[in-house]
Amino acid sequence: MTTDTEHDAQTPTQARSAAYRNDRAHVFHSWSAQASLDPVVVAGASGSYFWDESGKSWLDFASQLVNVNLGHQHPKLIEAIKAQADKLCTVAPYHANEATAEAARLIAQVAPGDLNKVFFTSGGAEAIENAVRIARHHTGRHKVLSAYRSYHGATAGAISLTGDPRRWGAEPGMSGAVKFWGPYPYRSAFHASSPEQECERALAHLADVLMVEGPHSVAAIVLETVVGGNGILVPPDGYLQGVRALCDRYGIVMVADEVMAGFGRCGEWFAIDRWRVVPDLIAFAKGVNCGYVPLGGVIISERIAESFASKVFPGGLTYSGHPLACAAAVACINVYRDEGIIERVRRLGDELIAPALDAIKQRHPSVGDVRGVGMFWAIELVRDRASREPLVPYNAAGADNRPMSEFAAACKQGGLWPFTHFNRTHVVPPLTISEDDLRKGLAIIDEALNVTDRYAVA
Amino acid sequence: MTTDTEHDAQTPTQARSAAYRNDRAHVFHSWSAQASLDPVVVAGASGSYFWDESGKSWLDFASQLVNVNLGHQHPKLIEAIKAQADKLCTVAPYHANEATAEAARLIAQVAPGDLNKVFFTSGGAEAIENAVRIARHHTGRHKVLSAYRSYHGATAGAISLTGDPRRWGAEPGMSGAVKFWGPYPYRSAFHASSPEQECERALAHLADVLMVEGPHSVAAIVLETVVGGNGILVPPDGYLQGVRALCDRYGIVMVADEVMAGFGRCGEWFAIDRWRVVPDLIAFAKGVNCGYVPLGGVIISERIAESFASKVFPGGLTYSGHPLACAAAVACINVYRDEGIIERVRRLGDELIAPALDAIKQRHPSVGDVRGVGMFWAIELVRDRASREPLVPYNAAGADNRPMSEFAAACKQGGLWPFTHFNRTHVVPPLTISEDDLRKGLAIIDEALNVTDRYAVA
Repeated sequence: MTTDTEHDAQTPTQARSAAYRNDRAHVFHSWSAQASLDPVVVAGASGSYFWDESGKSWLDFASQLVNVNLGHQHPKLIEAIKAQADKLCTVAPYHANEATAEAARLIAQVAPGDLNKVFFTSGGAEAIENAVRIARHHTGRHKVLSAYRSYHGATAGAISLTGDPRRWGAEPGMSGAVKFWGPYPYRSAFHASSPEQECERALAHLADVLMVEGPHSVAAIVLETVVGGNGILVPPDGYLQGVRALCDRYGIVMVADEVMAGFGRCGEWFAIDRWRVVPDLIAFAKGVNCGYVPLGGVIISERIAESFASKVFPGGLTYSGHPLACAAAVACINVYRDEGIIERVRRLGDELIAPALDAIKQRHPSVGDVRGVGMFWAIELVRDRASREPLVPYNAAGADNRPMSEFAAACKQGGLWPFTHFNRTHVVPPLTISEDDLRKGLAIIDEALNVTDRYAVA
Repeated sequence: MTTDTEHDAQTPTQARSAAYRNDRAHVFHSWSAQASLDPVVVAGASGSYFWDESGKSWLDFASQLVNVNLGHQHPKLIEAIKAQADKLCTVAPYHANEATAEAARLIAQVAPGDLNKVFFTSGGAEAIENAVRIARHHTGRHKVLSAYRSYHGATAGAISLTGDPRRWGAEPGMSGAVKFWGPYPYRSAFHASSPEQECERALAHLADVLMVEGPHSVAAIVLETVVGGNGILVPPDGYLQGVRALCDRYGIVMVADEVMAGFGRCGEWFAIDRWRVVPDLIAFAKGVNCGYVPLGGVIISERIAESFASKVFPGGLTYSGHPLACAAAVACINVYRDEGIIERVRRLGDELIAPALDAIKQRHPSVGDVRGVGMFWAIELVRDRASREPLVPYNAAGADNRPMSEFAAACKQGGLWPFTHFNRTHVVPPLTISEDDLRKGLAIIDEALNVTDRYAVA
């Protein structure tokens, strides 16, 4: 094949495996220009590490796509999947079965307030799609508000709510999608000079958007409780309470997108628990079962579920409540609880990561800001701390993105697989990472930041 | 819980299991009014049968939702899932791995023409979403044509293309979705009196729709090769060739939705192979791995994939190319091939099902039409063979649907789990069903049709 020849030409001394050749010949990858890809063939993984066919391994500081919260190949999840595979892999969603029912019970148990019913999907995008559907039918309204600097998934509805460049390729999108600006103290859209002011002004802005859109026409406000891929934007205290109050005032459904932030990542079952706020719907995926089997869903308040007691819910999918995926969720949630994962994340976030990143910020002129909670942290890189000019332009590619590419290469060279996005790297390792590996990973990042420092004002 | 009490009241002598109680308390089901549900708790399944906690079993003539093509708990699929679980459950979609690459290679191998690249999703709706995305970016056009009497999935894009009442709850939908009428000889939209005339007129209608919409503005024509849930509408010979010719003439991407019809169901790898037509994109799910692990995807022609060689494909999902799902697909495709499943389906369709349904039609005045191919058949029920008045109104519910509810109850009473939709029942058992079980199932349906005969003109 042409592709193989090209790659053979690039790496003449390296024999490429059948897996590599088949991937290049036949696999079409997400969010990529296909010809330039040179993917790692992942041959195996365990805990916080994964390795390629040659045995080269990386410390996974990205948890793949922030989903393997319990690390790779957790024995209790593997055991649960194999046991369920022997028992019952799949049933139609109109049936019930033990694994689905138990997963729903456990999720309802750890969910806040009266969020007591679970509609299962196969991932986060479908969770958002169905949260919007539920909110629209519950309220009889059409518009949905969501934030700039957000990601909600790539199906037509979810991508329309997304407030980052991944939406651009899907426009014109779903009707009724309206954007607002959320809090982001380091780059305040509201010229605020303190978190308190950012909170107050962000809420005033949201109230203004509701006023001019007509709150009676708004079905839902959808927001990532802690914004993930777009920068680990932890809302100032009071913000989510304020959003809740606006939703209550106008009868709007509050949808917390906890796909990335939920299930322990922020040192809480759901990130929103940190502020003791109860949303009406929670969209989840990833950490619910670490993505070992595709699963997502919506947790629904009893009050909203009641809207569909005698009225048909107009949504569904063949794999809703998939037994194999739900069995993995049951095992995963039990591990979070029985092994004290949530408390560990909170402790390591406060006691190890926060001080380590503060020290990194002191050492590196290219580090403009560090922020986060639990095991959900961002290092934001700049050319100039005074002006806060980003290290690379918004949505940079190719040569414009070189400082970030060089940073990522340095991390990989050092044995760490980083999560990078725009002018940031995120510290999002498995929640089960050992303290030694966590320190080791932070040291590799510390070293790699010498590369970005070369692009920054000293 | 209130729910439990209600059910206890309804079935005072029957102890309800924890699985049942947890389901009713916490699981929100697809396409349903939640309070009226009384689901079967599926405790296990094997081959063509599944059973509840009391041991009551049903012959699965629905293959759940027409997905367990190789029946329940096929040992080779279970073995492959367990082996892959031990090896590597999940990786991010930017990596490669052996299971994904091999699944893509096998799918490309069985796909027609130059359809050689696979973008994996977690199900059929996402497959359609991404097929539309690919077609729009490849052509630079926006509109997408699809047929009335079709189902393409329930995410915002896929449901907008859907031509049945499941779309109603999602309107207003995606912009640029335009509907046309496909061939349906039994209820011709074109007043045709033969399949040849139906074909010719349906193509003329499609050409007219293109003319008035402006073919230069149309990115894709999306159609179920053989319409599934909406009636097993097998296109007359020549129709798909005609659609292909229109697509070629105007540079429109032809998308074959083979989510239900593909992977052996029609006695071909893909239903479209029956007519030797090569589409530009194939959307698949279900039969690719029998839904044992959620999986779907788009098979992409080399020519179209080339559009994304140096241009970023603006779509993706965390679970794209999921190793566990792909390992199940590898095993599944190997079984189809090694065990001669495709040929068996063709033979049993022609030699056993077709004559049996013809005999059923002779015996029952409520049977207006029988049609199908392979193991994909419909029995369409009427009140009057002469007028062809449907046994129940379009999209009937409650009392209006009583004749069909009574038919379904009679099947279940007889030990068969039927697939019913509107005024039809479909014969869609596992492709591995024994000939004895196939005859037994057809006999149960034959008997149950005495119920519908009571509503029909003798």
